[in-house]
Amino acid sequence: MRAVDLIRKKRDGMELTGEEIGYLIKGYSEGEIPDYQMAAWAMAVYYQGMSARETADLTLHMASSGDMIDLASIRGVKVDKHSTGGVGDKTTIVIGPLVAAAGVPVAKMSGRGLGHTGGTIDKLEAIRGFSVELGQEQFFRQVNEIGLAVVGQSGNMTPADKKLYGLRDVTATVDSIPLIASSVMSKKIAAGADAIVLDVKTGSGAFMKTLDDSIRLAKAMVDIGTQVGRSTIAVISDMDQPLGYGIGNALEIQEAIATLRGEGPKDLEEVCLILASHMLVLGGMAESEEEARAILQQKLESGEALDRLKMMVEAQGGDISQIENAELLPQAELHVEVKAETAGFVESIQAEEIGIAAMLLGAGRETKDSVIDLAAGLTLRKKIGDPVEVGEVLAVLHLNSSYEVRLEEASRKVREAYGISDDKVPRRPLVFALVTPEGVRRF
Amino acid sequence: MRAVDLIRKKRDGMELTGEEIGYLIKGYSEGEIPDYQMAAWAMAVYYQGMSARETADLTLHMASSGDMIDLASIRGVKVDKHSTGGVGDKTTIVIGPLVAAAGVPVAKMSGRGLGHTGGTIDKLEAIRGFSVELGQEQFFRQVNEIGLAVVGQSGNMTPADKKLYGLRDVTATVDSIPLIASSVMSKKIAAGADAIVLDVKTGSGAFMKTLDDSIRLAKAMVDIGTQVGRSTIAVISDMDQPLGYGIGNALEIQEAIATLRGEGPKDLEEVCLILASHMLVLGGMAESEEEARAILQQKLESGEALDRLKMMVEAQGGDISQIENAELLPQAELHVEVKAETAGFVESIQAEEIGIAAMLLGAGRETKDSVIDLAAGLTLRKKIGDPVEVGEVLAVLHLNSSYEVRLEEASRKVREAYGISDDKVPRRPLVFALVTPEGVRRF
Repeated sequence: MRAVDLIRKKRDGMELTGEEIGYLIKGYSEGEIPDYQMAAWAMAVYYQGMSARETADLTLHMASSGDMIDLASIRGVKVDKHSTGGVGDKTTIVIGPLVAAAGVPVAKMSGRGLGHTGGTIDKLEAIRGFSVELGQEQFFRQVNEIGLAVVGQSGNMTPADKKLYGLRDVTATVDSIPLIASSVMSKKIAAGADAIVLDVKTGSGAFMKTLDDSIRLAKAMVDIGTQVGRSTIAVISDMDQPLGYGIGNALEIQEAIATLRGEGPKDLEEVCLILASHMLVLGGMAESEEEARAILQQKLESGEALDRLKMMVEAQGGDISQIENAELLPQAELHVEVKAETAGFVESIQAEEIGIAAMLLGAGRETKDSVIDLAAGLTLRKKIGDPVEVGEVLAVLHLNSSYEVRLEEASRKVREAYGISDDKVPRRPLVFALVTPEGVRRF
Repeated sequence: MRAVDLIRKKRDGMELTGEEIGYLIKGYSEGEIPDYQMAAWAMAVYYQGMSARETADLTLHMASSGDMIDLASIRGVKVDKHSTGGVGDKTTIVIGPLVAAAGVPVAKMSGRGLGHTGGTIDKLEAIRGFSVELGQEQFFRQVNEIGLAVVGQSGNMTPADKKLYGLRDVTATVDSIPLIASSVMSKKIAAGADAIVLDVKTGSGAFMKTLDDSIRLAKAMVDIGTQVGRSTIAVISDMDQPLGYGIGNALEIQEAIATLRGEGPKDLEEVCLILASHMLVLGGMAESEEEARAILQQKLESGEALDRLKMMVEAQGGDISQIENAELLPQAELHVEVKAETAGFVESIQAEEIGIAAMLLGAGRETKDSVIDLAAGLTLRKKIGDPVEVGEVLAVLHLNSSYEVRLEEASRKVREAYGISDDKVPRRPLVFALVTPEGVRRF
């Protein structure tokens, strides 16, 4: 077998066999197939796509390129959740405790972030003393004892995916649905999930800007799950404006806690309930979404979900006083209001611009080596549909004084991110579609 | 400027500016842009193509990536000829002396071959003592004195093209018309030609198998010539069977000499006359093809063309007794006949298979390090349209005894290359179309 022949085969629109895909991924992973051949192959895939079977084969070969976590020693159906990422997305910190309280074990490996804010792991580190590095034995024991653990990825997971992603990033081959889908799913499969609930974001702040593309990506991932025997469903949720009000690491922990208290933003709560309901159904803890929702609402109201977060924080060495009193979380030195210059109704909020503003204030990493300022970020005061008067506060920037040089740029970005209309603007739907192995249900 | 943005731009079907193409080629040439980015770009070009302007810019940037030969010290209009390559193509060895005799200076840099037989330079080395390495001064002086010199490429010509071609070869991005066209033309332009006659082969033994593709390639090259101010025309000639009868280095020299004596195969003579006529017109030595043809025929009949070959051989240190008596050229130890097993008419000759048979017998290089056996090759006895009896000789294999292990495979390849029909088969046309800056004239 020669790599050049496989590139040509894909270039000409033919389907590669599982063995051929294995040859490419193993060879690339082991350094026998050079970057330039994989780059040409990835560009051919960009144009020709891959069949569901090819995509599943690619996923499995990338998953098995490194450590595969075996969650067998954890009791129950392990249901993982994955979001394609957006601005203000703190759902994992709400959903983890919530579904754990309802009996679905959550053994979550999560990532750090490059971009607007940190990843879930970075956010959790806003809690004093919280350790995201547990040994595997302790990780399993904790999930068996309290139903919940969130740790950083350790060891050598999906090295082929890491290498290929790095290459795609510099060769303009990121935006390929089968390549995105297999990258996400390879990590989930290597992390040992039995079932997977995907939160595919759509809109200005999402990787996929249009609903059609988001559905296509969701279908590709659900197809992979089906092909490799993991129950997988995908919810297409809105990212045309940030989720909730808080953007920034400590700010998002704070909002997640409020949500677990039943005092969070309604959009965040609703998205969490929808995703968590599907997790309960896939985890065998409810027969239907409606039944699941009733259970989850009871776990919120009873305080059991919040208790579960406290149990995890305690088990992972964190300071639970910060959970009990969120004001003890890191606070920025400065709070600067961004005010409306025109009156009307909020018509749009460019989520990506809001994310960049948060990053400018220190909430996210511009490069791999950037250090996150956990207290930094911003709090929105207005969302799409809200009426606005001239001089009313649109958002509050949270920053420490060392970031003051960026203040003007961040303020401008936030102001420009808001589109104000003279006419009344309807609220946006939170969820647009559900993609299951049976098909697509649009709402 | 970032390479990844330029890859994305081309990926999305947009036209790169000359500056952007220059950035890519210069960066790649200097090692600042890595192979993997150029591979992704080349694959994007494979799918999206390039405009005539982009292709011309690419050509010029590749031409100027290394030494540019300045032929100004040679008197007259320097007309170069280039063939896209085929089996049995010894036209340069006929045309060079022929047009030189008619007053068009031929300062030809030619290549070695990888494949069926050697290149023109390898073929000329079948003449004892012939040196293909002349200093530039001697090269120019020889052309001014006798009108003709054929030398190997020396120095550092078109390094960017060499590097990119090597990359395309292993990334399945060779078959892109703008990339092929710019590769050919960059070398011609760096070699200093004022005008260029292209011989674009079409058919089973050619790089371009169909007439439409051949015309497309020809148009792309003529467009480049026009854009960069070099008069360029292309003849589309047949390569659905080998040209002439001899395939192999010494065998082709022998056939070229016969042709210069007016005793060569009619197809070879005709193609040479057509190409040479265009060279005379572009070189300002004739007003029309008809006038050019009359001059050339006179140069053949008078023996002046053959004399010109002898003058070049003498000037470059070769043994002219081998020109006067071609039997003194290297001869193989063994001559093995391949006989027809069915009667009828020759309907097709898979030129590529014939070429591979010649290579198996030692006439060509399988790898860069292979040593060519100058005496090896084969002589066809039947061409398309010829009647054949059972047991009649189709071709004679010429080989030295060290290649006897390959004899069976080569015989089989030759026999299988011949398609025999029950019905009478018409002769094939030699030339299908002429491509000029004004358009395409099909015959």
